[in-house]
Amino acid sequence: MTDSPLTRPLRKQYAELRDGKLTATALVDASLEAYRTRGKRDHAYLTWNGEPARAFAAATDALLAQGGDAGALMGMAISIKDIYAVPGLPTYAGSSTRLPADWERPGPMISALLAQCPSVMGKTHSVEFAFGGLGTNAHWGAPRNPWDAVNHRTPGGSSSGAGVSLVGGTASLALGTDTAGSVRVPASMTGVAGLKTTAGRWSTEQIVPLSSTLDTPGLLARRVDDLAFAFDALDDSLSVSRQRVPARPALADLTFGVPEHFFWDDCSPGIAETVRDAIQRLESAGARLVPLELPGTDDAFALFQQGGLAAAELAAFLRTSLPESIPNLDPNVAARVAAADDMPAWEYVRRRSLIESLYREAADRMADVDAVLTPTVALTPPTLESLVPEGAYPKANMHALRNTVIANFLGLCGLTLPVGKDAAGMPVGLQVLSGPWQDARLLAVGQAIENELGNGLEILGMPPA
Amino acid sequence: MTDSPLTRPLRKQYAELRDGKLTATALVDASLEAYRTRGKRDHAYLTWNGEPARAFAAATDALLAQGGDAGALMGMAISIKDIYAVPGLPTYAGSSTRLPADWERPGPMISALLAQCPSVMGKTHSVEFAFGGLGTNAHWGAPRNPWDAVNHRTPGGSSSGAGVSLVGGTASLALGTDTAGSVRVPASMTGVAGLKTTAGRWSTEQIVPLSSTLDTPGLLARRVDDLAFAFDALDDSLSVSRQRVPARPALADLTFGVPEHFFWDDCSPGIAETVRDAIQRLESAGARLVPLELPGTDDAFALFQQGGLAAAELAAFLRTSLPESIPNLDPNVAARVAAADDMPAWEYVRRRSLIESLYREAADRMADVDAVLTPTVALTPPTLESLVPEGAYPKANMHALRNTVIANFLGLCGLTLPVGKDAAGMPVGLQVLSGPWQDARLLAVGQAIENELGNGLEILGMPPA
Repeated sequence: MTDSPLTRPLRKQYAELRDGKLTATALVDASLEAYRTRGKRDHAYLTWNGEPARAFAAATDALLAQGGDAGALMGMAISIKDIYAVPGLPTYAGSSTRLPADWERPGPMISALLAQCPSVMGKTHSVEFAFGGLGTNAHWGAPRNPWDAVNHRTPGGSSSGAGVSLVGGTASLALGTDTAGSVRVPASMTGVAGLKTTAGRWSTEQIVPLSSTLDTPGLLARRVDDLAFAFDALDDSLSVSRQRVPARPALADLTFGVPEHFFWDDCSPGIAETVRDAIQRLESAGARLVPLELPGTDDAFALFQQGGLAAAELAAFLRTSLPESIPNLDPNVAARVAAADDMPAWEYVRRRSLIESLYREAADRMADVDAVLTPTVALTPPTLESLVPEGAYPKANMHALRNTVIANFLGLCGLTLPVGKDAAGMPVGLQVLSGPWQDARLLAVGQAIENELGNGLEILGMPPA
Repeated sequence: MTDSPLTRPLRKQYAELRDGKLTATALVDASLEAYRTRGKRDHAYLTWNGEPARAFAAATDALLAQGGDAGALMGMAISIKDIYAVPGLPTYAGSSTRLPADWERPGPMISALLAQCPSVMGKTHSVEFAFGGLGTNAHWGAPRNPWDAVNHRTPGGSSSGAGVSLVGGTASLALGTDTAGSVRVPASMTGVAGLKTTAGRWSTEQIVPLSSTLDTPGLLARRVDDLAFAFDALDDSLSVSRQRVPARPALADLTFGVPEHFFWDDCSPGIAETVRDAIQRLESAGARLVPLELPGTDDAFALFQQGGLAAAELAAFLRTSLPESIPNLDPNVAARVAAADDMPAWEYVRRRSLIESLYREAADRMADVDAVLTPTVALTPPTLESLVPEGAYPKANMHALRNTVIANFLGLCGLTLPVGKDAAGMPVGLQVLSGPWQDARLLAVGQAIENELGNGLEILGMPPA
């Protein structure tokens, strides 16, 4: 699989698809081969779309051969989290039941993607209604984290199949969503790069909602450079700001804020050390480091521990749109939704207003630096067995999301990229955060970091077969 | 008082203040005289600022005489609802207790106003925390509707002193706020014109919040033309759209939508007749009338009857910022705030999301016409005695706000202008509604209507002495 064309940089795939060195069919064939080899064990997909994708790729190749060009992502193999409405593919949003047909009508994000004629390999697993950070699912089972051949460790969630689809070799780009870390956590746990966009930048229409306030579409890929390529392919038709990723800056021109508190607490063995080492190498390469505490971190985390906004917002959606799903909820999801029953409306209003003030303070503080650097996830991916005892799941879930949710509650955009392995041999991610609407600039900063430290394939190699 | 310079059109005051025919001092003196004559009976002001305003006017005149010009509202006599933070004047927001000093720090609206050096005559009464449409207040008493010399009838609320300050001759322009009708109801009940701006157009910062979602600053004046003048003076520094009121259109070029249902139900004697007659006169003058039902009217009113958003949003504000005020609330306000205690968070989320969908549908429908015409208030201003029996206040309050709240829940802007008197001899208002962000165009349409029907002074004359 090391020589799979799917692992090539998207920019290279783009050029090769157009100069005849690569075909969409070859990409899909590589995906089909990987799926045959390890698809069942990886368990990344709820709905596999291999054969239709192959027919689609053949038609794409005919069009490419005629000089047709539907856009930058044409012919590339992608996976889509089972929370986006996609024509012709069922949506479960990780629940036990197929959602009504209207949830197969595409929103702006999927329309912008499909207009470029990529090969859709399938819909990847999600935590039920995206409400959890580890990647478990009582109805469909958890995808397997490919980096541990012995134990079934969690892949991270809620975009639980997204990272696995990349590492398992079935896709070059994966669509996820991030409300508290649901792109960054699985990216970090599976050793790929992930982008959480600024809330409001890309429409969440026709994405099954967890939190109408904080949901964001996001991307996962093998490299930050791939994320930048895909961002440029999509942002123009999705965002009013229509920014393009600027040229990669020199590390010597960048100032990074590094918090001294909170993000380093209770890290599993090897995580803090690996991230500190990566940051140290950036400094050695010329970057300037300054201590910077994100304002409101403790308030934000306390709010998250109380259930944040998502519990009430998901409860409102389920009660009005899918009431029949409530009695069948995954117990871990049901417990969090039920917690909202006791929250009075005024408390929800208070939380919204607190988050608005956190947004304002954070935007001011972030203006002082080019980005803030932290570990993405403080917890090594736990084994499924370790989550069985009473109370173990909520504790691990909170631990996994602790460092990412801060960005959601502070209104930031962020990305993660792999920088090494922890003491358990599992991937470790570096989180890079920027102020609101700085997504394009953030990707350029991320490319500068990746250029210095190496990309995931270079750092981690390939997962065990 | 008929010849008070305060009753002249603002455009005329503007010109005369600059060509020496009028002074700011003369305007304040006319206000002081009116206050001496009927101020105690009218009871429009919680904080009267007469003497400081006179000193301020003298300084203004000296500056004007030197060719100084701080802006269009310079030297004009204005009143401000006791819910705006104004430097040097206490804020009670209609509650029993002076609010903390931070509530005397001006927000954008008051800063934009004060930068033009008007004479601030004082702060007018408000229903406690603006939560009521009749104008009552258990702590401070209700201003008296000037149009009934025998009975103490309500002045409308929650900007209960705003209309009375105009009719009573102490101001030429009054600042109010409108969350469910709190500008339009008092304007209609006291026979003046009132503007409810589109939510989000003008900042509500440093205005004591009732509903963080639906609060809007608004204006009351003797004429729509005065509103247009004041709008042009303020909008440029308050709104990103920075529109100016366009030229007054010809009635023959206008199409008005007239709902056949809802707005005409249960009107007090003479109200529907007077409004229908006014609309008929517009048609005779060349305007085109088409039937048009506002979408979501019934849903919006049902939502309002359930407490809308304000109950929970006010409860959140009071619990976090002014908890000590809760045990002392006006019983009619307390009952509505307490109703929010039983509302779960998910129900609030559902209501927000319903209102967002109402906004979208209404914006589409409004595009078909230049404006929609309805009676502003279906209820003749009740006497205070009639509100005493158990259950009478909530019923009358709902009745008074029924026709105005629809615009708030549908995201519209609106104005009211007096068009005659009802069977009880009380003023009757015509409500003119336009789609979101059409405020400037709405004022031009309102000027065309006023030009045909006459302004309040011409239609109603002066109130009994």
